[in-house]
Amino acid sequence: MKKFVNDPKQFVPEMLEGIALANPDTLAYVPEYNLIMRKDAPRDDKVSIVQGSGSGHEPAHVMIVGKGMLDAACPGDVFAAPPMDYVYETAKKLATPKGVLLLVNNYTGDRMAFDMGKEMAESEGVRTEILMINDDVAVKDSTYTIGRRGVAGNFFVIKAVGAASERGDDLEEVVRIGKKVNDVTRTMGVALTACTPPAKGSPLFDLGADEMEVGVGIHGEPGRERRKLAGADEIADELLDAVVDDLPYASGDRVALMVNGLGGTPISELYILYRRAHKQLADRGITVGRSYVNEYCTSLDMAGASITLVKLDDEIEELLAAPAEVPIRVF
Amino acid sequence: MKKFVNDPKQFVPEMLEGIALANPDTLAYVPEYNLIMRKDAPRDDKVSIVQGSGSGHEPAHVMIVGKGMLDAACPGDVFAAPPMDYVYETAKKLATPKGVLLLVNNYTGDRMAFDMGKEMAESEGVRTEILMINDDVAVKDSTYTIGRRGVAGNFFVIKAVGAASERGDDLEEVVRIGKKVNDVTRTMGVALTACTPPAKGSPLFDLGADEMEVGVGIHGEPGRERRKLAGADEIADELLDAVVDDLPYASGDRVALMVNGLGGTPISELYILYRRAHKQLADRGITVGRSYVNEYCTSLDMAGASITLVKLDDEIEELLAAPAEVPIRVF
Repeated sequence: MKKFVNDPKQFVPEMLEGIALANPDTLAYVPEYNLIMRKDAPRDDKVSIVQGSGSGHEPAHVMIVGKGMLDAACPGDVFAAPPMDYVYETAKKLATPKGVLLLVNNYTGDRMAFDMGKEMAESEGVRTEILMINDDVAVKDSTYTIGRRGVAGNFFVIKAVGAASERGDDLEEVVRIGKKVNDVTRTMGVALTACTPPAKGSPLFDLGADEMEVGVGIHGEPGRERRKLAGADEIADELLDAVVDDLPYASGDRVALMVNGLGGTPISELYILYRRAHKQLADRGITVGRSYVNEYCTSLDMAGASITLVKLDDEIEELLAAPAEVPIRVF
Repeated sequence: MKKFVNDPKQFVPEMLEGIALANPDTLAYVPEYNLIMRKDAPRDDKVSIVQGSGSGHEPAHVMIVGKGMLDAACPGDVFAAPPMDYVYETAKKLATPKGVLLLVNNYTGDRMAFDMGKEMAESEGVRTEILMINDDVAVKDSTYTIGRRGVAGNFFVIKAVGAASERGDDLEEVVRIGKKVNDVTRTMGVALTACTPPAKGSPLFDLGADEMEVGVGIHGEPGRERRKLAGADEIADELLDAVVDDLPYASGDRVALMVNGLGGTPISELYILYRRAHKQLADRGITVGRSYVNEYCTSLDMAGASITLVKLDDEIEELLAAPAEVPIRVF
């Protein structure tokens, strides 16, 4: 296993401690519940925005806790949902008079933990809503979900509800906005290699030297097809066609276009995919209003990428453009 | 080769075109010279800051062109210095009454291209200075350098001279600041895997399944020692000791601490290294004033990391904290 790791059991806690040490003014780490939260949360004047999920998808979600984004993230272990009592304790800690919004990428394990955590929190009077994200067009049901999976497109939901909550919107309004963004967000990914979970120490699945997994899930779950590796443009076309065809688009539409790296792919290659996707959209008369080329939601060290499109209107574009702060420093 | 690539010969131009398409308001791409430049450059009221080097180190340097950072980057092909006439044409295009500062990471091929390009530009009246960066403590001379190599620490030089030039400092003052930052910046890296250049299509060197290359260069050049893979804390200690011991440090000193990923290592693992380095510094009485955990200067898809320390004083800290803009979007 070619990783920077000490005891694999301590992979997540050590990462979280590192995040807190690097951001002493803004973030707090609560080891008992794997919790990373803003130091200024909860705030009475805003809905608290929380996302949990398995770890191994960083920067999602523990590295996007900050002003205008998440108020807290409560991750599970690598590729494991957080325990329901972590969700419960997190909701209690983040409780405000305006309520708590729990964002959940649609994976059955996460749904279960959050449904139960929500119930426990509500029984103690914490006003809580759950918003499910299901942007992955690759498959209808999947290995670990009923219905579509939630993947990198959740980033846009987080940004939008983060901005809405920051300006003081009520819980109903924040939920409306989150659902609206989820409804116009579509993603599909491709894996060129498997990933290696620290506790397993070997690749999670086998993928031949000349193969790729089209429509892969963020834990390496099978997608639409395993087939022979293709060139970058052909791959970009296939991912883009899948997401464009899943919504009615017309010439003149504006979109946010994300090319998301899955962890082991350098950003140079992501821009090669971006180039093609941008041009193909232009050929359809679709304008890219906002571009995102980076790692947002990864699968440990998997080589691969996903393409996400968000159909923009003025309301969504304004929310995506709102100021925010995350622990990731680019300059 | 598990990469997103079309024709390997077009790897760099396609990446650059992608960057320009994603940043239509701020960046221009000049295909004749592999040049990415700010649309508002050159500006009469500021020194133009330019860095070239081989490609394959992204985001360095083509993705850190922007306000407060570089005015332009003129990369060569993957792991190849830019041709001298690209440097010359870039210096001419960026010429301002206040001059052009060419930043060069110390690799012999780059030095040669920039020395010659500078001479050509000066013969046409372009006021030009070169500032060499040599932050890598791993080896004194190396496979491709006389003297120490320039690696990820150049990021801090760029940030400081970018900020100084933005406020209108003269060329002499910008050079003084750049030298000062370089003088207090030290880096050492480690590779867990080799990288695969697109044109080669196979790993650049062999590294056993249980081996690591300590003190590796950013093209995979040998460092101090090839030895058995160790745990994250042990690796962090070794890198940190090397950079701390290379400058006189005393209890009470403040530093910027960077943990830089080499391209194939997920950010989760970088925070595990960060955690240890931060604590070890605290044990020595050294305070981390600014934290950087991300990919800044990579080696294609190499799994690995480097640690950089910058000894801070008020002047440097103010320059590092100045506002800037880069094409990399984190929210």
